[in-house]
Amino acid sequence: MTAPLTDFSRLCIHTITTKPWALETATARFAAAGVKGITVWRQALEGRDPAAAGRAIRAQGLEIVSLCRGGFFPATTAAGRIAAIDDNRRCIDEAAALGAPLIVLVCGAVPGQSLAESRKQITEGIAAVLPHAAAARVKLAIEPLHPMYAADRSAVNTMAQARAICRELGSPGVGIAADVYHIWWDDNLEAEIAASGREGSLFAFHVCDWRTPTTDLLNDRGLMGEGCIPLRQIRGWVEAAGFRGFNEVEIFSNRLWASDQDQFLRDIQAAYLAHC
Amino acid sequence: MTAPLTDFSRLCIHTITTKPWALETATARFAAAGVKGITVWRQALEGRDPAAAGRAIRAQGLEIVSLCRGGFFPATTAAGRIAAIDDNRRCIDEAAALGAPLIVLVCGAVPGQSLAESRKQITEGIAAVLPHAAAARVKLAIEPLHPMYAADRSAVNTMAQARAICRELGSPGVGIAADVYHIWWDDNLEAEIAASGREGSLFAFHVCDWRTPTTDLLNDRGLMGEGCIPLRQIRGWVEAAGFRGFNEVEIFSNRLWASDQDQFLRDIQAAYLAHC
Repeated sequence: MTAPLTDFSRLCIHTITTKPWALETATARFAAAGVKGITVWRQALEGRDPAAAGRAIRAQGLEIVSLCRGGFFPATTAAGRIAAIDDNRRCIDEAAALGAPLIVLVCGAVPGQSLAESRKQITEGIAAVLPHAAAARVKLAIEPLHPMYAADRSAVNTMAQARAICRELGSPGVGIAADVYHIWWDDNLEAEIAASGREGSLFAFHVCDWRTPTTDLLNDRGLMGEGCIPLRQIRGWVEAAGFRGFNEVEIFSNRLWASDQDQFLRDIQAAYLAHC
Repeated sequence: MTAPLTDFSRLCIHTITTKPWALETATARFAAAGVKGITVWRQALEGRDPAAAGRAIRAQGLEIVSLCRGGFFPATTAAGRIAAIDDNRRCIDEAAALGAPLIVLVCGAVPGQSLAESRKQITEGIAAVLPHAAAARVKLAIEPLHPMYAADRSAVNTMAQARAICRELGSPGVGIAADVYHIWWDDNLEAEIAASGREGSLFAFHVCDWRTPTTDLLNDRGLMGEGCIPLRQIRGWVEAAGFRGFNEVEIFSNRLWASDQDQFLRDIQAAYLAHC
């Protein structure tokens, strides 16, 4: 049995989790609460200079864990795929300026295009931006998304598919962001996490929970402990696979965004100790 | 490339698809439209004698393809699991009286209970009712459900898991209902369908479509052609695996239930020829 977490030294929170807060507010509140890591969403950077934002975050004692998100490589036209590659290069530049060592990739899918073709385009898209990412010293993490997002958000829906792309690309700069929300149901999960660890591709670990009932496909995630995901068990597998990075709290929830965010932050910290 | 369907000789419609219609109305309308098969949902039988209902359906020239649905075997208590087994025996009795040769199983899950434990309880539950089913000459079809239902509706989420249970039970009376809505995203789908065919477990084939966006986890299925599922390709795989049964239209849709059901039936038939 995996031991509970006892402090916040590896707690990271995504800016999207407390979406009502501007980046500056989130940074100040997280720092004051003793949270040690932050993952910045691109929309939180809008209208800001990424380099200045990065300095301001670090000045508060927070470590920038990653920039969310690049990806969305598949398109039905070559022009669309080139535009996606260009946007990912801009994302890499933002990450480098911000001082984020990692970009999380929501890889994309096109309704009606075969998932196999989309995965091919994803692999080609990542290959196309890899030299730019390497030069910027920014790594890329493929996030397998739940199969309910296969139509339009990601044709990469399992750890096995993500590992296959990593192996095909064969670069130490490409790995996987394992988010429990997307992969908890997979009966091969323990073995897949172990394999990702052996292959050196386990780059990030995201936590939240799966509610019953889930009323919205996108924005009804639960706080840890509100649902059925065996969080501590999965964290144990991730750590057994050699992962020593942050446990990143990434929750999209209309319900929780509508609540008092200071109280929500306290609830996140309590849930982190109780359930992760 | 699989040839289009050119007639309705293998078209079956589930009573739930035209939920606003009582069983008698659905039977009459399906028969008048030249539909040859019907799958009856248990709630459509409420307040009716199943044997009389079966005779009335057959008198209109319709073949009863299956009874939906049994299952929901897992429970946290032994009493709960026994109650589920008892209910499945009643379902078998209903199917026998109705004259349905097959029951579709939505196998069940309990939020917070491990999916592996639920699959064990599912296997045990099916084993417990198998003698009763065999005596009644009713077969059982495990329906793998989409992973978005893993928390509370079914711990069987892939064809591979369903095949594993079939192999463990080793009975010609237990097979699989392959519903495109649940399994279209699976990158092993063609091989899994072929294996199910070889093993003699491919008992039923259900069609509908996956819409983008999907606004409700349960009741926002699309009519064939409204979404991204490669229906004709999957039907080709199913037929290559030796399946010669009905193509069953099973659509849960608040939107379509609210529409004129006579027009909807015409749309189903047009979509069947155009997209299945």
